[in-house]
Amino acid sequence: MQFSRRRFLNQVGAAGGSAAVYQMALALGLMSGDARAAGRTTPGATPAAGLVPQLKGARRSVVMLGGGLSSLMAAYELERAGYDCTVLEAGHRIGGRNLTLRSGDLVDEMGHQQRCNFDDDPNLYMNAGPARIPVHHYYLVNYCRHLGVQLETFTNVNYNAWVQDPNAFGGKPVRFRQYITDARGFIAELSAKAINTSDLDAEFSTEDLERIIAFLRSYGDLDTDLLYRGSNRGGYQQPGVLAPTAGMLEHGHVHERLDFSEILKSDFWQYRMYFGDGEDQAAPLLQPVGGMDRIVDAFVASIRSPMLTHAQVKSIRLKEEGVSVVYQHKGRHREIQADYALNCIPKHLLVGIDNNFPSEYTTALRSIGRGRMFKIGIQMKERFWENENIYGGISWTNQNIEQIWYPPHNVHGRKGVMLGAYTWNPANAEFFARMNPEERFAEAVRQGANVHPDYARYAETAVSVPWHRMNHIMGCTAMWTEETRRQYFTYLQTPLNDRHFMMGDQISYHPGWQEGAFSSAHHSLSELGKRVSAELGGAA
Amino acid sequence: MQFSRRRFLNQVGAAGGSAAVYQMALALGLMSGDARAAGRTTPGATPAAGLVPQLKGARRSVVMLGGGLSSLMAAYELERAGYDCTVLEAGHRIGGRNLTLRSGDLVDEMGHQQRCNFDDDPNLYMNAGPARIPVHHYYLVNYCRHLGVQLETFTNVNYNAWVQDPNAFGGKPVRFRQYITDARGFIAELSAKAINTSDLDAEFSTEDLERIIAFLRSYGDLDTDLLYRGSNRGGYQQPGVLAPTAGMLEHGHVHERLDFSEILKSDFWQYRMYFGDGEDQAAPLLQPVGGMDRIVDAFVASIRSPMLTHAQVKSIRLKEEGVSVVYQHKGRHREIQADYALNCIPKHLLVGIDNNFPSEYTTALRSIGRGRMFKIGIQMKERFWENENIYGGISWTNQNIEQIWYPPHNVHGRKGVMLGAYTWNPANAEFFARMNPEERFAEAVRQGANVHPDYARYAETAVSVPWHRMNHIMGCTAMWTEETRRQYFTYLQTPLNDRHFMMGDQISYHPGWQEGAFSSAHHSLSELGKRVSAELGGAA
Repeated sequence: MQFSRRRFLNQVGAAGGSAAVYQMALALGLMSGDARAAGRTTPGATPAAGLVPQLKGARRSVVMLGGGLSSLMAAYELERAGYDCTVLEAGHRIGGRNLTLRSGDLVDEMGHQQRCNFDDDPNLYMNAGPARIPVHHYYLVNYCRHLGVQLETFTNVNYNAWVQDPNAFGGKPVRFRQYITDARGFIAELSAKAINTSDLDAEFSTEDLERIIAFLRSYGDLDTDLLYRGSNRGGYQQPGVLAPTAGMLEHGHVHERLDFSEILKSDFWQYRMYFGDGEDQAAPLLQPVGGMDRIVDAFVASIRSPMLTHAQVKSIRLKEEGVSVVYQHKGRHREIQADYALNCIPKHLLVGIDNNFPSEYTTALRSIGRGRMFKIGIQMKERFWENENIYGGISWTNQNIEQIWYPPHNVHGRKGVMLGAYTWNPANAEFFARMNPEERFAEAVRQGANVHPDYARYAETAVSVPWHRMNHIMGCTAMWTEETRRQYFTYLQTPLNDRHFMMGDQISYHPGWQEGAFSSAHHSLSELGKRVSAELGGAA
Repeated sequence: MQFSRRRFLNQVGAAGGSAAVYQMALALGLMSGDARAAGRTTPGATPAAGLVPQLKGARRSVVMLGGGLSSLMAAYELERAGYDCTVLEAGHRIGGRNLTLRSGDLVDEMGHQQRCNFDDDPNLYMNAGPARIPVHHYYLVNYCRHLGVQLETFTNVNYNAWVQDPNAFGGKPVRFRQYITDARGFIAELSAKAINTSDLDAEFSTEDLERIIAFLRSYGDLDTDLLYRGSNRGGYQQPGVLAPTAGMLEHGHVHERLDFSEILKSDFWQYRMYFGDGEDQAAPLLQPVGGMDRIVDAFVASIRSPMLTHAQVKSIRLKEEGVSVVYQHKGRHREIQADYALNCIPKHLLVGIDNNFPSEYTTALRSIGRGRMFKIGIQMKERFWENENIYGGISWTNQNIEQIWYPPHNVHGRKGVMLGAYTWNPANAEFFARMNPEERFAEAVRQGANVHPDYARYAETAVSVPWHRMNHIMGCTAMWTEETRRQYFTYLQTPLNDRHFMMGDQISYHPGWQEGAFSSAHHSLSELGKRVSAELGGAA
């Protein structure tokens, strides 16, 4: 049984450190060939080389509190620079919200422990946490490269996916392709008309005004008379039995235009229509082959320092010369003394742990909101979406499920795991969190059927993750306001006593992104490095 | 030496048919595991099942003239329905313009036979012909599925790729991301202003007008006062040594806006800016793992009928009861009699072959223009583009090279094969075709350096394909006009004498697309099926 094998591994890890876990995992066949390829680091400098001084004769110890990505990056870099490292993780696994669920995995939700019942197949997984790699996320991409994590193209925007809104088009889903084409057509037509009748001559030359109108023609695919009459960008109608060859053996018939007032009634254009133009959302995006936690696997396989799971921090005490941390492990309290502590424990859990922090620090930690997000992964017995010309990407609805994601990998495979819901609105996360896992499954399928009528017929099993209900995590993501940023961000970035460093995506401008965690680790390592350099002078 | 091994295979094919080629190719190690996996057809009906009647007692023979995709589809379907099939191909290989070039391959260009000197590596290939699979191309996608051709995501639009125009921004390349963001911002600002000052109240309710303005805000990422002040959609500036964490540990600084008049001066917005919204160009797109000719491999591995290469058609004679074809093979003229001929020989070559077609048929064939396109593939010793955050997609320039493509597969591999030019303007194809291969390589590198300054440093070897100079092909793609479509399209789709069927993407509304070829085969099979059914009555 996979779960107990994995639990066993955590115990091996507690005893022997990650290298032991990795070797044991290979022996148990729990890691795929890809995961084995990962962990073969490329020669040359690590991505964050140089942030901390290389220790030569000196010794320095660092304890990482919490086993999230920022701790993994810090442990990896510090270990290579000669520091003694220990990672303490309260939960049953390393990786934080970088969580990929596969056959047999445990979902450690408060009150609803679930087992993932997906088939045992390397393509059938759910990235319950982060699922996209924007290519300008420097550390994320470069650790993947450095640690040998194989990457593949991830599809974010899919013109064939659906837009569904109960308040428009009678609730009937329309293709993104058609929606965006027609919306742009109407707007371009209107804008061209308004610009042509406006008095902009003072501002622009005739030549430029002509170009602006030409630009709008191109934008909206307008006719020469500047009217929008539909566009093949929206796709061709499939006329009856000749459907396969629509537009191939004749001119093709473009779709009837959507009603502009219906488009305006839907709220899709308010932000999600341009979602795929966002800084972190625009193509190209990547994903690790086999699941996002290949990144965690690769770090774990490359770190020799002890990384304990089921090691819950009970007390953090700043001392004159370092930090003392008490944690519970195997039923006993243990104490670890270190020169430095790097801490990525979620701020809302940290405030409940005994400490001797200044009260302003606690006030600052408490000021950051605790976000709520929900994902449900559904194993579908057929990849029915491919019969709808959908390969990867997202359908959008303003039901509680908000998003349906289709896996971009294993094209034309037999089964697939989709996201049946991914909620950004906290009320929707709450809506699902209040249900038990079976109810969530039923509700996600019920709502999904408004996008894909035959949805229920394919749904086999589901696993759901309300992040604000997950043990040892209890939130996603940190919610800063302009006000709290101004007041506390720099303060919380600054090490307490020069010894205790707050970390994680929670201490970044990109909460919820892996790069936020890495960037925060970058900052902490850099600050720690300055202090060690100062202490050691030329002796490092 | 690979080339002679491949030639040997063609001879094996001539003697023993494709199954012999396939077995021999496996024995010689010329096919990868992927290609081996292909050819395992899925159970159930073929994608075009039912277009021709299944022969029971009766016999019918069909000769396919030309070994392009339409012939492969036709042979595959007819063979399964019990017809006696033969494919005659003049060139040294089956597949037509579905051509993937790898280490050792021959480029059979008139006057410039080239050998492809890419390293022998399954990731280092150039799709010299079609390179994208739009997912609504029914037959293309479904033959891949049916024949077990493994597909992966293809990246077409890349927001990080470059737009370079000598007439704008001083010839300096700008990121697509920045170009499109700023162009939209300016246009949205202008449109909102014009709409606000226009007299549209009669046409729209106040509520709708508010929504239209809100739509433009979303489109252009305008501020609340409807001004465009830059947007993080365009990406953040990378401030000095902290570059890796730009926007991660602070608000981030958006790029300075591009000058709108410079944007208007460039011609990118005229059509290429919205290229990725096109019917056949919008995401998602797919490509076969390992190269486009995996599709050809899969057909070849699945067809048992003889497919002869180096078999040049010399004469086509329509007879009372069938078609007589004379072809040259191994230095001798041979004759084949068949009940039907399906002909995908390029129309401009066909008119030079002895025939007894009506003169109007020849006039019709001559009326279709012969397109010119050019591609050059360059093996780069490092995947330098990935250091520029480019993973797949296209950079655009209005130099002769027009496009630079980056391979979407083998992310973070060592080397890569890029397209150093892909020309749509016939004058640009001619510009390169007039040079010898070494000059083309040098010129493509020289122009590419205006997009990537260090380009030359990475370029190792190149192979170039001017399609209008390739033996037995001599054109790409068929150029129809509204006038010739009206006059001749249906006529050329109609079988001559009920016996001779013109085929190929040339007889479709999608010349240059594989789906055009398949759709044309669909049409021919369907027409042939009707005739056979009529002949056989209930006897089929």
